[in-house]
Amino acid sequence: MHPLLTGLTGGPVRPSHGLLRPLGTDEICITGGFWAHKQRVNSEATLAHCEEWMERIGWIGNFDRAASGTIADHHAGIEFVDSEVYKLLEAMAWELGREPDAALEARYTALVARVAAAQEEDGYLHTSFGRPGQPARYSNLEFGHELYCFGHLFQAAVARLRTGHDDVLPQVARRLADHVHAEFGPSGRAAVCGHPEIEMGLVELSRITGDARHLEQARLFIERRGRGTLRSSSFGPFGDEYFQDDVPIREAETMRGHAVRALYLASGALDVADETGDTALTEAVAQQWANAVGRRTYLTGGAGSHHQDEAYGDDFELPPDRAYAETCAGIASVMLSWRLLLATGAEQYADLIERTLLNNVLASPREDGRAFFYTNTLHQRTPGSVPTEHELSHRAESSLRAPWFEVSCCPTNVARTLASVGLYFATATGSGVQLHQYGDYRIDTQLDAGRIRLQVRSGYPFDGAVEVAVLEAPDAEVDLRLRVPAWAAGAASLSEQPAVDAGTHLELRRVLAPGDVIRLELPIQPRVTWPDRRIDAIRGDFAVEAGPLVMVLESADLPAGWSVNEVEADAASIVAGADGPRVTVTRRADPDAAWPYAPHPARTEREHHTARMIPYHAWANRGPSTMRVWIPQAE
Amino acid sequence: MHPLLTGLTGGPVRPSHGLLRPLGTDEICITGGFWAHKQRVNSEATLAHCEEWMERIGWIGNFDRAASGTIADHHAGIEFVDSEVYKLLEAMAWELGREPDAALEARYTALVARVAAAQEEDGYLHTSFGRPGQPARYSNLEFGHELYCFGHLFQAAVARLRTGHDDVLPQVARRLADHVHAEFGPSGRAAVCGHPEIEMGLVELSRITGDARHLEQARLFIERRGRGTLRSSSFGPFGDEYFQDDVPIREAETMRGHAVRALYLASGALDVADETGDTALTEAVAQQWANAVGRRTYLTGGAGSHHQDEAYGDDFELPPDRAYAETCAGIASVMLSWRLLLATGAEQYADLIERTLLNNVLASPREDGRAFFYTNTLHQRTPGSVPTEHELSHRAESSLRAPWFEVSCCPTNVARTLASVGLYFATATGSGVQLHQYGDYRIDTQLDAGRIRLQVRSGYPFDGAVEVAVLEAPDAEVDLRLRVPAWAAGAASLSEQPAVDAGTHLELRRVLAPGDVIRLELPIQPRVTWPDRRIDAIRGDFAVEAGPLVMVLESADLPAGWSVNEVEADAASIVAGADGPRVTVTRRADPDAAWPYAPHPARTEREHHTARMIPYHAWANRGPSTMRVWIPQAE
Repeated sequence: MHPLLTGLTGGPVRPSHGLLRPLGTDEICITGGFWAHKQRVNSEATLAHCEEWMERIGWIGNFDRAASGTIADHHAGIEFVDSEVYKLLEAMAWELGREPDAALEARYTALVARVAAAQEEDGYLHTSFGRPGQPARYSNLEFGHELYCFGHLFQAAVARLRTGHDDVLPQVARRLADHVHAEFGPSGRAAVCGHPEIEMGLVELSRITGDARHLEQARLFIERRGRGTLRSSSFGPFGDEYFQDDVPIREAETMRGHAVRALYLASGALDVADETGDTALTEAVAQQWANAVGRRTYLTGGAGSHHQDEAYGDDFELPPDRAYAETCAGIASVMLSWRLLLATGAEQYADLIERTLLNNVLASPREDGRAFFYTNTLHQRTPGSVPTEHELSHRAESSLRAPWFEVSCCPTNVARTLASVGLYFATATGSGVQLHQYGDYRIDTQLDAGRIRLQVRSGYPFDGAVEVAVLEAPDAEVDLRLRVPAWAAGAASLSEQPAVDAGTHLELRRVLAPGDVIRLELPIQPRVTWPDRRIDAIRGDFAVEAGPLVMVLESADLPAGWSVNEVEADAASIVAGADGPRVTVTRRADPDAAWPYAPHPARTEREHHTARMIPYHAWANRGPSTMRVWIPQAE
Repeated sequence: MHPLLTGLTGGPVRPSHGLLRPLGTDEICITGGFWAHKQRVNSEATLAHCEEWMERIGWIGNFDRAASGTIADHHAGIEFVDSEVYKLLEAMAWELGREPDAALEARYTALVARVAAAQEEDGYLHTSFGRPGQPARYSNLEFGHELYCFGHLFQAAVARLRTGHDDVLPQVARRLADHVHAEFGPSGRAAVCGHPEIEMGLVELSRITGDARHLEQARLFIERRGRGTLRSSSFGPFGDEYFQDDVPIREAETMRGHAVRALYLASGALDVADETGDTALTEAVAQQWANAVGRRTYLTGGAGSHHQDEAYGDDFELPPDRAYAETCAGIASVMLSWRLLLATGAEQYADLIERTLLNNVLASPREDGRAFFYTNTLHQRTPGSVPTEHELSHRAESSLRAPWFEVSCCPTNVARTLASVGLYFATATGSGVQLHQYGDYRIDTQLDAGRIRLQVRSGYPFDGAVEVAVLEAPDAEVDLRLRVPAWAAGAASLSEQPAVDAGTHLELRRVLAPGDVIRLELPIQPRVTWPDRRIDAIRGDFAVEAGPLVMVLESADLPAGWSVNEVEADAASIVAGADGPRVTVTRRADPDAAWPYAPHPARTEREHHTARMIPYHAWANRGPSTMRVWIPQAE
């Protein structure tokens, strides 16, 4: 059987009925430029960094101690650290699929062996529960994260399978999935996990193995949720909404509660909807996506404005200085948008993927890939401190990127996302190829009429010129679709005509021949962006974007002693510069008042300075600084 | 000995060296009007409400179970619920001092007896620690709140002593203070409590009993703090700043960390500074007060803009929709400002007391005194839900006032504050009387030259006319000082001259005679207030104040179906109305956009409506609603 038909190729998700078909590591690969650099830092620094940290602080050792029966009083870390090991395994699997490497393969195999050794007879595998001296299995469904961890193990196994290896971890996953079915299946306990995640893993396992029980299990988890199911077992300090257990997902109107939970749940629901043909569920999630994107999302694509419970705020409650915008929520948002893109083919989803990846997600890793932002503020008021390289951080808001966290979901999530990021760049149908993201990458896949090979080249996101060179093409008409980001609508130009301008994309339909080069030009010069007036926190402020990049003003680009808190600017002063936009800022020497509220706004001395702006994702790489995305429009 | 000299009269705090002398319940009493109504609701509803709740859910019963040896597995509530009982006792004591009542006296006595029965042989008294089956005493100084609870017991005892009774609770307090000295004194463990509070209680006990050990103990607690003292014993998830254990108080520049902790600590430090003549410490705290008031305080006087850790934010980080502004922080702010007023005589402190009491603190209790806001937002975006009358609430942000909370510090804090609120209205010196707050109240105290009796009358805060009628006066010149709030500076008029206009107050110096009436007129018509431009979250918005009251726009005063989120107004449209200011608001029918950031601000349809504004403290008494203090200035 052709590997495309077995499900044993493709990316993290491979819908059975979507309009677009994702490509696997054998079909698309990044070949250079911006993204190749990010992937290189990820493979050369971040993977080892994650492994070394988890070895040193005992999170990997938990599996050894579980296997040897010594875990009871010697579990390291909180109850979902298993999932960090699984996300690292997933990252390694994608990395190995992308570029085989014997040394990494050996590390991967050794790590899998330690995980596998901890699996119990009946398939259960978690280092925090169930062994003598530990809390009982499933005694804390609300916060225990057992099924959540299983989900990450399943996703790691899927990555291994989709990169061509049906070896140890997939076997562990199958046994674990059987256990889940026995425990939580139609005749098991009608419960759900406090943190959605397993649903996605179960559907993908089902897609690969053809075992319908796993799909049904995922469906049950989706359908049971939203009915106070968790609260009936224990008591939730944040309320049902936090867990999306307040309203069934097909009845909800928007994303709410804990952002990562909400977005993982919605992603899993789409997977179930795809397999069961439940278009009503797909439409419900698409509407929730639209409402959240239109009212509850930061300019960077970040989601979640509450620190307290890592949750979405109310509509238009998007304070830049208290943006939580957790890195994992950005990644989860990419996962959701990707599923909607595959299901519907609508490029609005690719737009948000681009925005979220290039701004919210990429802001997390430090340039060297060895420290990470957990939260991604849009306004840093005070220069953060620099965490020491060997200290475990809280998800501290007043620090710069930290090497590791007590709750360290973000670094490994970044690692697995960057290792597989190219898989989000393009898709195929029987008749053509759709380019959703731009950079340097090669496509090599099968259309109905035959093999097609394309080389895409672009200095994107800093250069708006995109070249698509045809290396090989079938002797038949091919649909070539190129996304036009919303910010470029009406301003994109293609090197040849006729092309259909569908607003969100340009489409060519013709026979392609090796040597053909199609050129797309996107306008990436700086532009001013204003917020909806209902976003109270930034009314009267503007932002600067350049192509897909959100730009920031960082104090490192201001005269010594200035902070971003005291400046304003005229949006009309924005000009393009050689290394980024320039803005003429005005420093208000505001007098210190005994009381900051007065009958008349203060009149103050002013100084001016023309400052460079840099991409949001690149801030905080020059030491402690203040930073802002939204700049007050000068009066 | 004259009672004034024994410390056995006066209010909650009685400095030895302050410029102004506080008055006791025998010297000042509210006689009618706005405040009498609030005190009546407090005495007739709130006290019984608190007692009934704590009886029903076992918080009072904890003492019985501790006494009978059955507490181990049967402690109700979190580890600082003892303090709620003590704050209720303090409230009862002030109430009994204000107005003797045999039935309340009997309830008080019975409750004290149950508390006293739980005291251990060595003086220790806490229902969560130290008995068989419980965690060891002082095993969790960071979050155990043992010394914090003791502090509240001391303050309750002080209220009993200052209202003329040296009976059971003061005896319990003395024994407990002896225990604290033995355990934490100069030769004891060099530790502090995670939550400051005991410092104030110890100094007051020392002032009453003359026992210098208690003052020294308070001084030690103040001086030990700020050196990572807590962290050395355990690990703080919020960091040292949360506990004010990051910087010694005499070196700190502003209020920071958990707001109630910060303000209680500063209050205790001032008490120590007063007794030890440590003017450097007083000046340090006064500077911290000034920096926090100028940069970290809401228009309502509320303090604390972070939900996550109930903490102060950075300078000018004052989001109205995420204002935490905990009721207890407002009360703690009043306690701090009161001490600074007594120490320095500067009326800026009385200004903040007025603002905080009338807005932040009074917003907490529902009109009937049986439900409370824990947090006091300045912008309610979605109509809150109504908690059921018999359910224990989290300190939920999406609900209206709740009858009781799992962490229920606010209701009892409101109770003790309202029971004693008149004691904050005026002070005396040897030569005169200072009126800091206005309302209907009577003063009867001794000056150097003899007895003085005054009747103050005012419809304040709704009417700016204040009458001071002399009932009795010594046959000598008297200084009569009347505060002029900052918002009335230059616009207050006095019925007689010559008076010294000191900006913050008017001062008469003459021989007073019975029958004399002095009239002060303050301008209370509505006025527009603009924020410092550095408060990003409300730049371009204005607020309306009327006299000492912050006004709000509540959806109950808008046409059906309108929310406050979609309106703006021209500040020039504010006019006075018979029952409050009127503002002409414009509703923007903002189109729902797929993405709320755009190259050009949206132009929208508009509707207009003239709406009443009501006092902030009175909002949310007409069912679920949206509300905002800060109104966007129309473009």
